[in-house]
Amino acid sequence: MAQNKRPLDALNQARNKRVIVEQKNGRQYVGNLISFDIHINAVLEDAEEREDGKTKRKLGVVFIRGDTITIISPA
Amino acid sequence: MAQNKRPLDALNQARNKRVIVEQKNGRQYVGNLISFDIHINAVLEDAEEREDGKTKRKLGVVFIRGDTITIISPA
Amino acid sequence: MAQNKRPLDALNQARNKRVIVEQKNGRQYVGNLISFDIHINAVLEDAEEREDGKTKRKLGVVFIRGDTITIISPA
Amino acid sequence: MAQNKRPLDALNQARNKRVIVEQKNGRQYVGNLISFDIHINAVLEDAEEREDGKTKRKLGVVFIRGDTITIISPA
Amino acid sequence: MAQNKRPLDALNQARNKRVIVEQKNGRQYVGNLISFDIHINAVLEDAEEREDGKTKRKLGVVFIRGDTITIISPA
Amino acid sequence: MAQNKRPLDALNQARNKRVIVEQKNGRQYVGNLISFDIHINAVLEDAEEREDGKTKRKLGVVFIRGDTITIISPA
Amino acid sequence: MAQNKRPLDALNQARNKRVIVEQKNGRQYVGNLISFDIHINAVLEDAEEREDGKTKRKLGVVFIRGDTITIISPA
Repeated sequence: MAQNKRPLDALNQARNKRVIVEQKNGRQYVGNLISFDIHINAVLEDAEEREDGKTKRKLGVVFIRGDTITIISPA
Repeated sequence: MAQNKRPLDALNQARNKRVIVEQKNGRQYVGNLISFDIHINAVLEDAEEREDGKTKRKLGVVFIRGDTITIISPA
Repeated sequence: MAQNKRPLDALNQARNKRVIVEQKNGRQYVGNLISFDIHINAVLEDAEEREDGKTKRKLGVVFIRGDTITIISPA
Repeated sequence: MAQNKRPLDALNQARNKRVIVEQKNGRQYVGNLISFDIHINAVLEDAEEREDGKTKRKLGVVFIRGDTITIISPA
Repeated sequence: MAQNKRPLDALNQARNKRVIVEQKNGRQYVGNLISFDIHINAVLEDAEEREDGKTKRKLGVVFIRGDTITIISPA
Repeated sequence: MAQNKRPLDALNQARNKRVIVEQKNGRQYVGNLISFDIHINAVLEDAEEREDGKTKRKLGVVFIRGDTITIISPA
Repeated sequence: MAQNKRPLDALNQARNKRVIVEQKNGRQYVGNLISFDIHINAVLEDAEEREDGKTKRKLGVVFIRGDTITIISPA
Protein backbone atom coordinates (compact mmCIF):
# COMPACT_ATOMS: atom_id res chain seq x y z
CA MET A 1 0.00 0.00 0.00
CA ALA A 2 2.69 2.56 -0.89
CA GLN A 3 4.77 4.29 -3.61
CA ASN A 4 1.80 4.34 -5.98
CA LYS A 5 0.41 7.06 -8.15
CA ARG A 6 -3.31 6.71 -7.39
CA PRO A 7 -5.14 6.00 -4.13
CA LEU A 8 -6.87 2.90 -5.53
CA ASP A 9 -3.47 1.42 -6.40
CA ALA A 10 -2.75 1.41 -2.68
CA LEU A 11 -5.99 -0.48 -2.00
CA ASN A 12 -5.09 -2.90 -4.78
CA GLN A 13 -1.80 -3.70 -3.04
CA ALA A 14 -3.80 -4.47 0.11
CA ARG A 15 -5.96 -7.11 -1.61
CA ASN A 16 -6.04 -10.44 0.21
CA LYS A 17 -4.28 -8.84 3.16
CA ARG A 18 -5.69 -8.00 6.56
CA VAL A 19 -6.98 -4.43 6.79
CA ILE A 20 -8.94 -2.30 9.21
CA VAL A 21 -11.87 -0.33 7.78
CA GLU A 22 -13.27 2.48 9.90
CA GLN A 23 -16.73 3.99 9.43
CA LYS A 24 -18.20 7.44 10.02
CA ASN A 25 -20.34 5.96 12.83
CA GLY A 26 -17.19 4.89 14.69
CA ARG A 27 -17.35 1.17 13.90
CA GLN A 28 -14.26 -0.79 12.88
CA TYR A 29 -14.14 -3.88 10.67
CA VAL A 30 -11.00 -6.02 10.45
CA GLY A 31 -10.69 -8.68 7.74
CA ASN A 32 -9.05 -9.75 4.48
CA LEU A 33 -9.73 -7.22 1.73
CA ILE A 34 -11.35 -9.27 -1.05
CA SER A 35 -12.59 -6.50 -3.33
CA PHE A 36 -13.37 -2.79 -3.64
CA ASP A 37 -14.63 -0.43 -6.34
CA ILE A 38 -14.38 3.27 -7.24
CA HIS A 39 -17.06 4.14 -4.66
CA ILE A 40 -14.80 2.41 -2.08
CA ASN A 41 -17.52 -0.19 -1.51
CA ALA A 42 -15.42 -2.98 0.02
CA VAL A 43 -15.80 -6.68 0.85
CA LEU A 44 -13.88 -8.23 3.74
CA GLU A 45 -13.57 -11.93 4.53
CA ASP A 46 -12.87 -13.54 7.92
CA ALA A 47 -14.14 -10.25 9.24
CA GLU A 48 -14.98 -9.04 12.70
CA GLU A 49 -16.49 -5.89 14.09
CA ARG A 50 -14.43 -4.23 16.81
CA GLU A 51 -15.17 -1.65 19.46
CA ASP A 52 -12.41 -0.10 21.55
CA GLY A 53 -10.00 -2.75 20.27
CA LYS A 54 -12.21 -5.68 21.34
CA THR A 55 -14.04 -8.09 19.04
CA LYS A 56 -17.79 -7.37 19.17
CA ARG A 57 -19.08 -9.69 16.42
CA LYS A 58 -17.63 -12.22 13.99
CA LEU A 59 -19.18 -11.60 10.56
CA GLY A 60 -17.40 -13.92 8.14
CA VAL A 61 -17.96 -12.00 4.92
CA VAL A 62 -19.10 -8.38 5.06
CA PHE A 63 -19.98 -5.87 2.33
CA ILE A 64 -19.23 -2.32 3.52
CA ARG A 65 -20.88 0.57 1.65
CA GLY A 66 -18.17 2.97 0.48
CA ASP A 67 -19.77 6.21 1.57
CA THR A 68 -19.70 5.06 5.22
CA ILE A 69 -15.90 4.63 5.24
CA THR A 70 -13.40 7.13 6.69
CA ILE A 71 -10.09 5.23 6.42
CA ILE A 72 -8.65 1.87 5.35
CA SER A 73 -5.27 0.78 6.74
CA PRO A 74 -3.29 -2.46 7.15
CA ALA A 75 -4.48 -4.25 10.34
CA MET B 1 -19.84 -13.90 -0.75
CA ALA B 2 -16.06 -14.34 -1.15
CA GLN B 3 -13.06 -14.71 -3.51
CA ASN B 4 -14.59 -12.28 -6.00
CA LYS B 5 -13.08 -9.39 -7.84
CA ARG B 6 -15.81 -6.76 -7.32
CA PRO B 7 -17.95 -5.95 -4.27
CA LEU B 8 -21.22 -6.49 -6.16
CA ASP B 9 -20.10 -10.03 -7.06
CA ALA B 10 -20.17 -10.77 -3.36
CA LEU B 11 -23.74 -9.47 -3.10
CA ASN B 12 -24.66 -11.56 -6.13
CA GLN B 13 -23.43 -14.70 -4.37
CA ALA B 14 -25.70 -13.80 -1.45
CA ARG B 15 -28.85 -13.70 -3.62
CA ASN B 16 -31.70 -15.83 -2.28
CA LYS B 17 -29.76 -16.34 0.93
CA ARG B 18 -30.46 -14.87 4.36
CA VAL B 19 -28.58 -11.63 5.00
CA ILE B 20 -28.51 -8.90 7.61
CA VAL B 21 -28.65 -5.32 6.32
CA GLU B 22 -27.68 -2.56 8.74
CA GLN B 23 -28.63 1.09 8.33
CA LYS B 24 -27.00 4.38 9.31
CA ASN B 25 -29.86 4.95 11.79
CA GLY B 26 -28.95 1.74 13.63
CA ARG B 27 -31.78 -0.43 12.33
CA GLN B 28 -31.21 -4.01 11.20
CA TYR B 29 -33.19 -5.93 8.60
CA VAL B 30 -32.83 -9.70 8.22
CA GLY B 31 -34.29 -11.47 5.20
CA ASN B 32 -33.65 -13.25 1.92
CA LEU B 33 -31.77 -11.01 -0.51
CA ILE B 34 -33.97 -10.91 -3.61
CA SER B 35 -32.33 -8.09 -5.56
CA PHE B 36 -29.92 -5.12 -5.38
CA ASP B 37 -28.53 -2.53 -7.79
CA ILE B 38 -25.43 -0.34 -8.16
CA HIS B 39 -26.81 2.16 -5.62
CA ILE B 40 -27.06 -0.83 -3.20
CA ASN B 41 -30.85 -0.38 -3.12
CA ALA B 42 -31.87 -3.84 -1.89
CA VAL B 43 -35.05 -5.90 -1.59
CA LEU B 44 -35.43 -8.53 1.16
CA GLU B 45 -38.15 -11.13 1.43
CA ASP B 46 -39.42 -12.87 4.60
CA ALA B 47 -37.87 -9.87 6.30
CA GLU B 48 -37.96 -8.64 9.85
CA GLU B 49 -36.68 -5.54 11.59
CA ARG B 50 -34.49 -6.24 14.60
CA GLU B 51 -33.34 -4.18 17.54
CA ASP B 52 -30.70 -5.47 19.93
CA GLY B 53 -31.02 -8.94 18.42
CA LYS B 54 -34.81 -9.10 19.00
CA THR B 55 -37.51 -9.10 16.29
CA LYS B 56 -39.32 -5.73 16.35
CA ARG B 57 -41.53 -6.05 13.25
CA LYS B 58 -42.22 -8.64 10.57
CA LEU B 59 -42.26 -6.88 7.19
CA GLY B 60 -42.59 -9.59 4.56
CA VAL B 61 -41.04 -7.79 1.61
CA VAL B 62 -39.00 -4.64 2.18
CA PHE B 63 -37.27 -2.24 -0.21
CA ILE B 64 -34.23 -0.64 1.49
CA ARG B 65 -32.80 2.56 -0.05
CA GLY B 66 -29.10 2.03 -0.75
CA ASP B 67 -27.77 5.25 0.71
CA THR B 68 -29.11 4.27 4.16
CA ILE B 69 -27.04 1.05 4.30
CA THR B 70 -23.76 0.62 6.19
CA ILE B 71 -23.10 -3.14 5.83
CA ILE B 72 -24.61 -6.31 4.38
CA SER B 73 -23.51 -9.68 5.75
CA PRO B 74 -24.81 -13.28 5.81
CA ALA B 75 -27.36 -13.64 8.66
CA MET C 1 -42.89 -7.21 -4.33
CA ALA C 2 -40.82 -10.40 -4.60
CA GLN C 3 -38.90 -12.86 -6.86
CA ASN C 4 -37.65 -10.01 -9.07
CA LYS C 5 -34.24 -9.29 -10.43
CA ARG C 6 -34.00 -5.54 -9.69
CA PRO C 7 -35.14 -3.53 -6.64
CA LEU C 8 -37.36 -1.24 -8.76
CA ASP C 9 -39.24 -4.30 -10.09
CA ALA C 10 -40.36 -4.90 -6.52
CA LEU C 11 -41.65 -1.32 -6.26
CA ASN C 12 -43.41 -1.78 -9.59
CA GLN C 13 -45.27 -4.80 -8.20
CA ALA C 14 -46.42 -2.60 -5.32
CA ARG C 15 -48.02 0.02 -7.59
CA ASN C 16 -51.63 0.82 -6.70
CA LYS C 17 -51.22 -1.16 -3.50
CA ARG C 18 -51.02 0.14 0.06
CA VAL C 19 -47.44 0.68 1.23
CA ILE C 20 -45.66 2.22 4.19
CA VAL C 21 -42.85 4.65 3.40
CA GLU C 22 -40.46 5.51 6.23
CA GLN C 23 -38.20 8.56 6.27
CA LYS C 24 -34.79 9.31 7.77
CA ASN C 25 -36.50 11.76 10.16
CA GLY C 26 -38.62 8.94 11.58
CA ARG C 27 -41.89 9.86 9.87
CA GLN C 28 -44.13 7.21 8.28
CA TYR C 29 -46.49 7.68 5.35
CA VAL C 30 -49.08 5.04 4.48
CA GLY C 31 -50.95 5.21 1.18
CA ASN C 32 -51.46 3.73 -2.29
CA LEU C 33 -48.22 3.82 -4.29
CA ILE C 34 -49.11 5.75 -7.45
CA SER C 35 -45.65 6.35 -8.92
CA PHE C 36 -41.90 6.33 -8.22
CA ASP C 37 -38.70 7.01 -10.17
CA ILE C 38 -35.02 6.00 -10.09
CA HIS C 39 -34.33 8.50 -7.29
CA ILE C 40 -37.11 6.70 -5.33
CA ASN C 41 -39.15 9.91 -5.38
CA ALA C 42 -42.61 8.49 -4.66
CA VAL C 43 -46.23 9.63 -4.81
CA LEU C 44 -48.85 8.14 -2.48
CA GLU C 45 -52.61 8.62 -2.69
CA ASP C 46 -55.16 8.33 0.15
CA ALA C 47 -52.13 8.95 2.31
CA GLU C 48 -51.73 9.61 5.99
CA GLU C 49 -48.79 10.47 8.20
CA ARG C 50 -48.37 8.19 11.19
CA GLU C 51 -46.48 8.45 14.44
CA ASP C 52 -46.13 5.47 16.76
CA GLY C 53 -48.79 3.62 14.78
CA LYS C 54 -51.36 6.43 15.14
CA THR C 55 -52.67 8.66 12.32
CA LYS C 56 -51.25 12.16 12.74
CA ARG C 57 -52.46 13.84 9.54
CA LYS C 58 -54.49 12.88 6.49
CA LEU C 59 -52.71 14.19 3.38
CA GLY C 60 -54.64 12.86 0.40
CA VAL C 61 -51.88 12.93 -2.21
CA VAL C 62 -48.26 13.30 -1.11
CA PHE C 63 -45.00 13.60 -3.06
CA ILE C 64 -42.11 12.16 -1.01
CA ARG C 65 -38.55 13.14 -2.02
CA GLY C 66 -36.54 9.96 -2.61
CA ASP C 67 -33.44 10.90 -0.65
CA THR C 68 -35.50 11.13 2.56
CA ILE C 69 -36.67 7.51 2.35
CA THR C 70 -35.21 4.59 4.32
CA ILE C 71 -37.60 1.73 3.49
CA ILE C 72 -40.79 0.98 1.54
CA SER C 73 -42.86 -2.06 2.48
CA PRO C 74 -46.44 -3.32 1.96
CA ALA C 75 -48.70 -1.72 4.61
CA MET D 1 -51.79 15.05 -8.11
CA ALA D 2 -52.90 11.44 -8.72
CA GLN D 3 -53.27 8.51 -11.18
CA ASN D 4 -49.99 9.43 -12.93
CA LYS D 5 -47.11 7.31 -14.01
CA ARG D 6 -44.18 9.45 -12.73
CA PRO D 7 -43.79 11.45 -9.50
CA LEU D 8 -43.13 14.71 -11.38
CA ASP D 9 -46.47 14.32 -13.21
CA ALA D 10 -48.12 14.63 -9.82
CA LEU D 11 -46.21 17.87 -9.13
CA ASN D 12 -47.22 19.11 -12.57
CA GLN D 13 -50.88 18.59 -11.72
CA ALA D 14 -50.35 20.72 -8.61
CA ARG D 15 -49.04 23.73 -10.60
CA ASN D 16 -50.81 26.98 -9.76
CA LYS D 17 -52.51 25.28 -6.84
CA ARG D 18 -51.88 25.77 -3.14
CA VAL D 19 -49.36 23.27 -1.72
CA ILE D 20 -47.48 22.70 1.49
CA VAL D 21 -43.74 22.08 1.19
CA GLU D 22 -41.97 20.63 4.22
CA GLN D 23 -38.22 20.80 4.79
CA LYS D 24 -35.72 18.53 6.54
CA ASN D 25 -35.24 21.27 9.17
CA GLY D 26 -38.94 21.09 10.08
CA ARG D 27 -40.06 24.29 8.35
CA GLN D 28 -43.25 24.44 6.31
CA TYR D 29 -43.98 26.71 3.36
CA VAL D 30 -47.51 27.12 2.00
CA GLY D 31 -48.10 28.84 -1.33
CA ASN D 32 -49.06 28.48 -4.98
CA LEU D 33 -46.69 26.11 -6.79
CA ILE D 34 -45.34 28.16 -9.71
CA SER D 35 -42.50 25.92 -10.89
CA PHE D 36 -40.26 22.97 -10.02
CA ASP D 37 -37.45 21.01 -11.70
CA ILE D 38 -35.94 17.51 -11.59
CA HIS D 39 -33.96 18.42 -8.44
CA ILE D 40 -37.36 19.32 -6.88
CA ASN D 41 -36.19 22.95 -6.59
CA ALA D 42 -39.54 24.70 -6.25
CA VAL D 43 -40.92 28.24 -6.42
CA LEU D 44 -44.02 29.22 -4.44
CA GLU D 45 -46.00 32.46 -4.77
CA ASP D 46 -48.21 34.11 -2.12
CA ALA D 47 -46.13 32.04 0.26
CA GLU D 48 -45.89 31.97 4.00
CA GLU D 49 -43.67 30.12 6.45
CA ARG D 50 -45.57 28.20 9.13
CA GLU D 51 -44.63 26.72 12.46
CA ASP D 52 -47.02 24.49 14.38
CA GLY D 53 -49.84 25.48 12.03
CA LYS D 54 -49.35 29.24 12.63
CA THR D 55 -48.08 31.78 10.10
CA LYS D 56 -44.55 32.85 11.06
CA ARG D 57 -43.59 35.01 8.06
CA LYS D 58 -45.19 36.16 4.83
CA LEU D 59 -42.64 35.73 2.01
CA GLY D 60 -44.46 36.55 -1.23
CA VAL D 61 -42.30 34.57 -3.65
CA VAL D 62 -39.89 31.94 -2.33
CA PHE D 63 -37.36 29.69 -4.07
CA ILE D 64 -36.92 26.44 -2.10
CA ARG D 65 -33.81 24.35 -2.78
CA GLY D 66 -34.89 20.82 -3.71
CA ASP D 67 -32.48 18.90 -1.51
CA THR D 68 -34.04 20.48 1.62
CA ILE D 69 -37.52 19.13 0.85
CA THR D 70 -39.10 16.06 2.47
CA ILE D 71 -42.68 16.17 1.13
CA ILE D 72 -45.00 18.27 -1.06
CA SER D 73 -48.76 17.92 -0.64
CA PRO D 74 -51.91 19.92 -1.50
CA ALA D 75 -52.47 22.56 1.22
CA MET E 1 -39.77 36.14 -9.16
CA ALA E 2 -43.15 34.77 -10.35
CA GLN E 3 -45.28 33.36 -13.23
CA ASN E 4 -42.29 31.47 -14.66
CA LYS E 5 -41.96 27.92 -15.86
CA ARG E 6 -38.67 26.94 -14.16
CA PRO E 7 -37.34 27.72 -10.68
CA LEU E 8 -34.17 29.35 -12.05
CA ASP E 9 -36.32 31.78 -14.07
CA ALA E 10 -37.58 33.09 -10.76
CA LEU E 11 -34.00 33.63 -9.54
CA ASN E 12 -33.22 35.34 -12.82
CA GLN E 13 -36.03 37.84 -12.23
CA ALA E 14 -34.49 38.59 -8.83
CA ARG E 15 -31.09 39.56 -10.31
CA ASN E 16 -29.84 42.95 -9.12
CA LYS E 17 -32.61 43.05 -6.55
CA ARG E 18 -32.36 42.67 -2.80
CA VAL E 19 -32.88 39.08 -1.61
CA ILE E 20 -32.57 37.10 1.58
CA VAL E 21 -30.66 33.82 1.38
CA GLU E 22 -31.07 31.39 4.26
CA GLN E 23 -28.67 28.56 5.03
CA LYS E 24 -29.07 25.10 6.57
CA ASN E 25 -27.03 26.32 9.57
CA GLY E 26 -29.61 29.02 10.27
CA ARG E 27 -27.63 31.99 8.94
CA GLN E 28 -29.25 34.67 6.80
CA TYR E 29 -27.57 36.81 4.16
CA VAL E 30 -29.28 39.88 2.71
CA GLY E 31 -27.88 41.58 -0.40
CA ASN E 32 -28.25 42.30 -4.10
CA LEU E 33 -28.33 39.05 -6.11
CA ILE E 34 -25.51 39.44 -8.65
CA SER E 35 -25.26 35.88 -9.98
CA PHE E 36 -26.24 32.25 -9.42
CA ASP E 37 -25.74 28.92 -11.22
CA ILE E 38 -27.47 25.54 -11.53
CA HIS E 39 -25.98 24.42 -8.19
CA ILE E 40 -27.63 27.55 -6.68
CA ASN E 41 -24.17 28.90 -5.83
CA ALA E 42 -24.99 32.60 -5.42
CA VAL E 43 -23.12 35.91 -5.16
CA LEU E 44 -24.59 38.82 -3.21
CA GLU E 45 -23.32 42.42 -3.18
CA ASP E 46 -23.80 45.03 -0.43
CA ALA E 47 -24.41 41.98 1.73
CA GLU E 48 -24.84 41.56 5.44
CA GLU E 49 -25.19 38.55 7.70
CA ARG E 50 -28.21 38.67 9.99
CA GLU E 51 -29.21 36.84 13.13
CA ASP E 52 -32.69 37.16 14.62
CA GLY E 53 -33.38 40.10 12.29
CA LYS E 54 -30.30 42.08 13.44
CA THR E 55 -27.21 42.82 11.35
CA LYS E 56 -24.29 40.70 12.62
CA ARG E 57 -21.61 41.47 9.99
CA LYS E 58 -21.30 43.59 6.86
CA LEU E 59 -19.64 41.50 4.15
CA GLY E 60 -19.71 43.58 0.96
CA VAL E 61 -19.53 40.80 -1.61
CA VAL E 62 -20.21 37.21 -0.55
CA PHE E 63 -20.09 33.92 -2.45
CA ILE E 64 -22.57 31.44 -0.94
CA ARG E 65 -22.13 27.74 -1.76
CA GLY E 66 -25.38 26.42 -3.23
CA ASP E 67 -25.64 23.23 -1.19
CA THR E 68 -25.84 25.27 2.04
CA ILE E 69 -28.95 27.16 0.93
CA THR E 70 -32.52 26.38 2.03
CA ILE E 71 -34.51 29.30 0.54
CA ILE E 72 -34.05 32.52 -1.45
CA SER E 73 -36.75 35.21 -1.26
CA PRO E 74 -37.08 38.95 -1.99
CA ALA E 75 -35.78 40.91 1.06
CA MET F 1 -15.99 40.09 -6.72
CA ALA F 2 -19.02 41.87 -8.27
CA GLN F 3 -20.99 42.80 -11.42
CA ASN F 4 -20.38 39.36 -12.95
CA LYS F 5 -22.73 36.94 -14.60
CA ARG F 6 -21.63 33.70 -12.90
CA PRO F 7 -20.69 32.99 -9.29
CA LEU F 8 -17.25 31.64 -10.24
CA ASP F 9 -16.47 34.93 -12.01
CA ALA F 10 -16.72 36.57 -8.61
CA LEU F 11 -14.22 34.08 -7.16
CA ASN F 12 -11.96 34.71 -10.13
CA GLN F 13 -11.90 38.43 -9.34
CA ALA F 14 -10.83 37.54 -5.79
CA ARG F 15 -7.74 35.59 -6.96
CA ASN F 16 -4.54 36.68 -5.24
CA LYS F 17 -6.56 38.77 -2.83
CA ARG F 18 -7.21 38.16 0.85
CA VAL F 19 -10.44 36.23 1.49
CA ILE F 20 -12.19 34.59 4.38
CA VAL F 21 -13.47 31.05 3.82
CA GLU F 22 -16.00 29.70 6.32
CA GLN F 23 -16.76 26.01 6.80
CA LYS F 24 -19.85 24.06 7.82
CA ASN F 25 -18.06 23.09 11.05
CA GLY F 26 -17.71 26.76 11.99
CA ARG F 27 -14.00 27.16 11.20
CA GLN F 28 -12.69 30.20 9.37
CA TYR F 29 -9.63 30.39 7.13
CA VAL F 30 -8.16 33.71 6.05
CA GLY F 31 -5.54 33.87 3.29
CA ASN F 32 -4.73 34.80 -0.30
CA LEU F 33 -6.98 32.91 -2.73
CA ILE F 34 -4.57 31.10 -5.06
CA SER F 35 -6.94 28.76 -6.87
CA PHE F 36 -10.41 27.18 -6.87
CA ASP F 37 -12.39 24.80 -9.09
CA ILE F 38 -16.01 24.02 -9.94
CA HIS F 39 -16.40 21.99 -6.73
CA ILE F 40 -15.26 25.16 -4.87
CA ASN F 41 -12.17 23.28 -3.68
CA ALA F 42 -9.90 26.23 -2.80
CA VAL F 43 -6.23 26.85 -1.99
CA LEU F 44 -5.20 29.72 0.27
CA GLU F 45 -1.67 30.99 0.87
CA ASP F 46 -0.34 32.87 3.92
CA ALA F 47 -3.34 31.33 5.61
CA GLU F 48 -4.46 31.20 9.20
CA GLU F 49 -7.28 29.46 11.00
CA ARG F 50 -9.41 31.76 13.14
CA GLU F 51 -11.86 31.21 15.94
CA ASP F 52 -14.02 34.04 17.29
CA GLY F 53 -11.89 36.54 15.38
CA LYS F 54 -8.60 35.33 16.92
CA THR F 55 -5.79 33.52 15.11
CA LYS F 56 -5.75 29.86 16.21
CA ARG F 57 -3.12 28.40 13.84
CA LYS F 58 -0.88 29.66 11.06
CA LEU F 59 -1.04 27.19 8.17
CA GLY F 60 0.93 28.73 5.30
CA VAL F 61 -0.71 26.97 2.38
CA VAL F 62 -4.03 25.18 2.89
CA PHE F 63 -6.22 23.12 0.56
CA ILE F 64 -9.88 23.40 1.58
CA ARG F 65 -12.33 20.77 0.28
CA GLY F 66 -15.19 22.53 -1.50
CA ASP F 67 -18.07 20.63 0.04
CA THR F 68 -17.06 21.89 3.52
CA ILE F 69 -17.42 25.57 2.53
CA THR F 70 -20.42 27.78 3.35
CA ILE F 71 -19.24 31.23 2.18
CA ILE F 72 -16.21 33.02 0.68
CA SER F 73 -15.88 36.79 1.12
CA PRO F 74 -13.12 39.42 0.91
CA ALA F 75 -11.22 39.49 4.25
CA MET G 1 1.74 24.09 -2.67
CA ALA G 2 1.38 27.63 -4.07
CA GLN G 3 1.23 29.91 -7.16
CA ASN G 4 -0.80 27.34 -9.08
CA LYS G 5 -3.90 27.69 -11.15
CA ARG G 6 -5.92 24.71 -9.86
CA PRO G 7 -6.37 23.33 -6.35
CA LEU G 8 -5.11 19.86 -7.33
CA ASP G 9 -1.85 21.43 -8.59
CA ALA G 10 -1.22 22.47 -5.01
CA LEU G 11 -1.77 18.90 -3.80
CA ASN G 12 0.55 17.69 -6.54
CA GLN G 13 3.32 19.94 -5.24
CA ALA G 14 2.83 18.38 -1.81
CA ARG G 15 3.42 14.82 -3.08
CA ASN G 16 6.05 12.92 -1.08
CA LYS G 17 6.06 15.68 1.49
CA ARG G 18 4.67 15.61 5.02
CA VAL G 19 1.10 16.88 5.24
CA ILE G 20 -1.68 17.06 7.79
CA VAL G 21 -5.11 15.85 6.68
CA GLU G 22 -8.08 16.84 8.83
CA GLN G 23 -11.43 15.08 8.76
CA LYS G 24 -15.02 16.21 9.37
CA ASN G 25 -15.09 14.03 12.51
CA GLY G 26 -12.18 16.03 13.98
CA ARG G 27 -9.44 13.44 13.41
CA GLN G 28 -6.03 14.43 12.08
CA TYR G 29 -3.67 12.28 10.04
CA VAL G 30 -0.01 13.30 9.49
CA GLY G 31 2.11 11.50 6.90
CA ASN G 32 3.82 11.63 3.52
CA LEU G 33 1.29 12.33 0.75
CA ILE G 34 1.73 9.42 -1.67
CA SER G 35 -1.30 9.88 -3.90
CA PHE G 36 -4.69 11.58 -4.29
CA ASP G 37 -7.44 11.72 -6.91
CA ILE G 38 -10.20 14.10 -8.03
CA HIS G 39 -12.44 12.96 -5.15
CA ILE G 40 -9.55 13.97 -2.82
CA ASN G 41 -9.20 10.33 -1.76
CA ALA G 42 -5.65 10.39 -0.37
CA VAL G 43 -2.98 7.89 0.68
CA LEU G 44 -0.43 8.78 3.36
CA GLU G 45 2.68 6.82 4.30
CA ASP G 46 4.53 6.81 7.64
CA ALA G 47 1.23 8.09 8.94
CA GLU G 48 -0.08 8.68 12.43
CA GLU G 49 -3.41 9.69 13.84
CA ARG G 50 -3.30 12.67 16.18
CA GLU G 51 -5.63 14.09 18.75
CA ASP G 52 -5.00 17.47 20.38
CA GLY G 53 -1.48 17.49 18.93
CA LYS G 54 -0.55 14.09 20.44
CA THR G 55 0.06 10.85 18.53
CA LYS G 56 -2.85 8.47 19.13
CA ARG G 57 -1.99 5.64 16.70
CA LYS G 58 0.75 4.82 14.21
CA LEU G 59 -0.86 3.56 11.01
CA GLY G 60 1.97 3.15 8.50
CA VAL G 61 -0.02 3.47 5.28
CA VAL G 62 -3.53 4.88 5.38
CA PHE G 63 -6.17 5.41 2.68
CA ILE G 64 -8.40 8.37 3.57
CA ARG G 65 -11.77 8.69 1.80
CA GLY G 66 -11.97 12.09 0.16
CA ASP G 67 -15.46 13.06 1.28
CA THR G 68 -14.34 12.90 4.94
CA ILE G 69 -11.62 15.55 4.45
CA THR G 70 -11.92 19.22 5.43
CA ILE G 71 -8.37 20.52 4.80
CA ILE G 72 -4.90 19.37 3.72
CA SER G 73 -1.88 21.46 4.69
CA PRO G 74 1.90 21.00 4.99
CA ALA G 75 2.70 19.40 8.38
